Amino acid sequence: MAEAPASEQDRLYRVRHSIAHIMAQAVLERYPEAGVGIGPPIENGFYYDFDLGTGDDGRPRTFTPEDLEQIEARMRELIAGRHPFVYRELTPEDARETFQQQTYKLELIEGALQGGIDEYGNESDETPIISAYRHDAFEDFCRGPHVEHGGQIPPDAFKLMSVAGAYWRGSEHNPMLQRIYGTAWLRKKDLQEHLKMLEEAKQRDHRKLGRELELFTFDDEVGPGLPLWQPRGAAIIEELEKLAKEMEFQAGYDRVRTPHLSKDALFERSGHLSHYTDSMFPPMQMDGLDYYVKPMNCPFHNKIYASKPRSYRDLPLRLAEYGTCYRYEQSGELYGLMRVRSMQMNDAHIYCTEEQFEAEFLAVIDMYQEYFRLFNIDKFFMRLSTHHKRGLGIKYVDNERLWHKTEDMVRSAMKRSGMPYEEVPDEAAFYGPKIDVQGWSVIGREFSLATNQVDFVLPERFNLTFVNREGQEETPLCIHRAPLGTHERTIGFLIEHYAGNFPVWLSPEQVRVIPIADAHHDFATDIAARLRKVGIRAGADLSNERMNRKIREAQLMKVPYMPVVGDREMEQGNVSLRKRDRSPQETFSVEAFIDFVQDKISSRSSEL
Amino acid sequence: MAEAPASEQDRLYRVRHSIAHIMAQAVLERYPEAGVGIGPPIENGFYYDFDLGTGDDGRPRTFTPEDLEQIEARMRELIAGRHPFVYRELTPEDARETFQQQTYKLELIEGALQGGIDEYGNESDETPIISAYRHDAFEDFCRGPHVEHGGQIPPDAFKLMSVAGAYWRGSEHNPMLQRIYGTAWLRKKDLQEHLKMLEEAKQRDHRKLGRELELFTFDDEVGPGLPLWQPRGAAIIEELEKLAKEMEFQAGYDRVRTPHLSKDALFERSGHLSHYTDSMFPPMQMDGLDYYVKPMNCPFHNKIYASKPRSYRDLPLRLAEYGTCYRYEQSGELYGLMRVRSMQMNDAHIYCTEEQFEAEFLAVIDMYQEYFRLFNIDKFFMRLSTHHKRGLGIKYVDNERLWHKTEDMVRSAMKRSGMPYEEVPDEAAFYGPKIDVQGWSVIGREFSLATNQVDFVLPERFNLTFVNREGQEETPLCIHRAPLGTHERTIGFLIEHYAGNFPVWLSPEQVRVIPIADAHHDFATDIAARLRKVGIRAGADLSNERMNRKIREAQLMKVPYMPVVGDREMEQGNVSLRKRDRSPQETFSVEAFIDFVQDKISSRSSEL
Repeated sequence: MAEAPASEQDRLYRVRHSIAHIMAQAVLERYPEAGVGIGPPIENGFYYDFDLGTGDDGRPRTFTPEDLEQIEARMRELIAGRHPFVYRELTPEDARETFQQQTYKLELIEGALQGGIDEYGNESDETPIISAYRHDAFEDFCRGPHVEHGGQIPPDAFKLMSVAGAYWRGSEHNPMLQRIYGTAWLRKKDLQEHLKMLEEAKQRDHRKLGRELELFTFDDEVGPGLPLWQPRGAAIIEELEKLAKEMEFQAGYDRVRTPHLSKDALFERSGHLSHYTDSMFPPMQMDGLDYYVKPMNCPFHNKIYASKPRSYRDLPLRLAEYGTCYRYEQSGELYGLMRVRSMQMNDAHIYCTEEQFEAEFLAVIDMYQEYFRLFNIDKFFMRLSTHHKRGLGIKYVDNERLWHKTEDMVRSAMKRSGMPYEEVPDEAAFYGPKIDVQGWSVIGREFSLATNQVDFVLPERFNLTFVNREGQEETPLCIHRAPLGTHERTIGFLIEHYAGNFPVWLSPEQVRVIPIADAHHDFATDIAARLRKVGIRAGADLSNERMNRKIREAQLMKVPYMPVVGDREMEQGNVSLRKRDRSPQETFSVEAFIDFVQDKISSRSSEL
Repeated sequence: MAEAPASEQDRLYRVRHSIAHIMAQAVLERYPEAGVGIGPPIENGFYYDFDLGTGDDGRPRTFTPEDLEQIEARMRELIAGRHPFVYRELTPEDARETFQQQTYKLELIEGALQGGIDEYGNESDETPIISAYRHDAFEDFCRGPHVEHGGQIPPDAFKLMSVAGAYWRGSEHNPMLQRIYGTAWLRKKDLQEHLKMLEEAKQRDHRKLGRELELFTFDDEVGPGLPLWQPRGAAIIEELEKLAKEMEFQAGYDRVRTPHLSKDALFERSGHLSHYTDSMFPPMQMDGLDYYVKPMNCPFHNKIYASKPRSYRDLPLRLAEYGTCYRYEQSGELYGLMRVRSMQMNDAHIYCTEEQFEAEFLAVIDMYQEYFRLFNIDKFFMRLSTHHKRGLGIKYVDNERLWHKTEDMVRSAMKRSGMPYEEVPDEAAFYGPKIDVQGWSVIGREFSLATNQVDFVLPERFNLTFVNREGQEETPLCIHRAPLGTHERTIGFLIEHYAGNFPVWLSPEQVRVIPIADAHHDFATDIAARLRKVGIRAGADLSNERMNRKIREAQLMKVPYMPVVGDREMEQGNVSLRKRDRSPQETFSVEAFIDFVQDKISSRSSEL
């Protein structure tokens, strides 16, 4: 989806913010005793938190679906009232007096008066101005901005969506409030599109499709966050690896293989044990030492670099591996394939001189773009994460000069690339700045797809050197890059992006031959065998079902090609090709059909 | 090497056994105070253990190279004496009297008298007969058989090889004896061949070639038994995986991917924690549970089987994975790639009905043969390992009936296959009998290459079922098979088998273009680029060295093709092809050369 222009974004922000206030008024009218928390505009809409007190069962009271309906109806009435939104500044006394009934607001006001937090309870450096906005009977501790009056809010472009529990100020030690989420837009059409997108997203949810299409599964006895890839999912993995290996061979990468675990000495040297233990699996004690499964491949690749003397003639050296890494995530944070504990990474480390850095960095970005073209990902942008002074020596290696130098190098390369990017402080890797690539699926869901990091730390820690043209030892730079991220996240993204309708080359089952009756089974089996002979993932449906049922089942599994064979086809050595997209059937000779499928696969076509 | 006929084997045994006695006499003449241990014939020769007492430094005295020379010379004199070997049986008193000076012999005699051990100190069920053989001045506690007299020993077909320390009766609590190894044959020619083979084996040692050819490396900070595969080694891995994936796709296997670790619950269910913990890595404690890295892939594949309902129509289901497993070995037992802690296994599990078992089992054996043909492995045989009653409930699952039933099934399938095999009791896997395939490299070194196991236990433990034709639930059988074993062992074998001269398709670097002078660099670079474009691992040597030096270096890295380009080649668009085997140079047009290489690769030819 294209970004709205800035003026429209500002209007939308005001509408969402104001509609949150209107909702709070409607809630207070229905539940006069309710405590009100915070109510900011957010992506796609707004929310507001309320404390409805405790029910007879001792648990926090919550909103019913009927409540939401009534509140939404009342909100439309309030909007129709076209009440102005009026700003005023308050003295501390005024503020305490105005919000005396609202303990949550009072807590925020006291915080703001002492400095350091804003009206949403977030940390803030700004000078506190205690201000409020009033419309009709509701006044809120707020800095705005808002619409001028309710008439500027389109009454048919918002909807209350859901209720969720949310701890006051995000801490489980605080009371649990009830959060109502709403979505709000400038036009009814936008709301409808958004709701349609949500419905579509639900249909495309990779967890749902992953189960239905038998791509992957989880098992309680194996453990959370550890996907087991069924044959159909593994077929996608194999295709992605084949693609990456081909592309990386052409781009001059060398493949390596390294173990999934190591002595602690390796991770001590790399700094992972000082900066990254929270994300690592716990140790195994063996032969009196601690061994760890690897959270990253870099320390191992550094060892391969170090396994022989290197000269400037060997650089750039690009070591690539599909290395599975293991990272600890709280089990509550695991989510389908998007947040897992085992990660099959499309990893590589490029060792180069400073002069080679920019060309190598830009070549990696070109590779991203090649992937994105192939997967029809039109919208993406990059985020440059840099260090923050306060993390030096804690989450970042303590060398401010090199941080600035490397960040300048990356910034300048990014500018040269002409790619859209934004800079985010305090999100770097511990060994250097990084670029993350965000992509959007066709239905507008955002994914973090790839990463590209510059490392000025590890090569030195591993005593990596090369002999330069002058015969002197020099330390190389290292670029960590993963253009296809991990199989887990990439495939999760692709499932939703394609809604399971993978292009032929990626389809787990590429052809299912459908015989009309038993008499055609041998012919169907023979066609499937000829397809498999040339490496096409094909089978024949020899069940006793009727043809239509067979087609329906192949369609459910999103098989791209369903060649149907009956008497006429058998006589003429033909197939009647039915495609997944239900385009008009075409007749092919068997040979021509095999050529046709092979061509779609070898060109990695996105057309059926 | 062909096996010798039985009569010749018997003669060889007698010669080796007798020559051991002759060596003991020669040692005792030189060191009259020496204690004598045991001296059996072994593969290729014989040894004898001696106690030379303690030196001035308090450590056991040992043999010098000069000792060995003198002893060998004296042995030839003794052989020339044609002394008869005379047998007699002894009463216990006779025996104690005869060997009163030899405390080690006395210990063995007492053991034999009490029953349970033989004259080499090994466990034995046989009735003890205390017998001795005498020749010339030396008599030994011994059952024979021996030659009739020293004249039957060829004096030019033996050689003393080395000295090594060996604990008396294999226990580190006992004194350390000095073992002299010798090799002995029936003909001088056989001795010479054997010595040549040993020299060749040293040259081919996979640890030596692995280092020289930059295939793999070990690193102290990573840990013992955990190889790091450098780009050239990883190229071989990639080719082997490509081969296996192609063959297995055609054989109807489905690929899967599973994590390298799991909760303890999985290995409790599988029985690994009860029967196999000694070979497992220690646990990681996470979220209050023990997690283990996997020693085998089977429990994971069982979970994939169980991830959906199965019908008889789905069987046989063949789940394949290149899954890396981790097994604990004492660090002293690790040996190059042959005994490691991380194993990239060519693994698969075939779930089938009892009726399908034989066909599936034989198809696996066919697959072995296909691999062996491809790798020119002419000599191999199979070992059928069965259970032993005494291990039931300890190292074997406790169900004697099923052991016998499954062993019968395998035995009958083996007979049908017509493959040479021998049966070894008490070596089965804990869940069923297994077939191991032993192969010999071209120089006659033996390797355990592949495995094929039948499992009547795990499917039930994992509640695996299928609905049979009658609509009832049934438990499938499971065949565990790994025809290419692990990458580690297979590549270790192939390195020695080919002496690093891999066929073109397996060669890490397939083509190195050699420009004669700077003026030919662009032409050479262009040829290399065209080769890479079609997937051939090719480069150009653009160093400043002279042509001969470049060729020597390519030859050292065993690059199969070294197309040389100079003025004439550039003019005519040709290359002068020099091959690794130094066969006469041929001239090709660049196009014809590319076709030629592609053809060798795609046919996996063993010819250059």
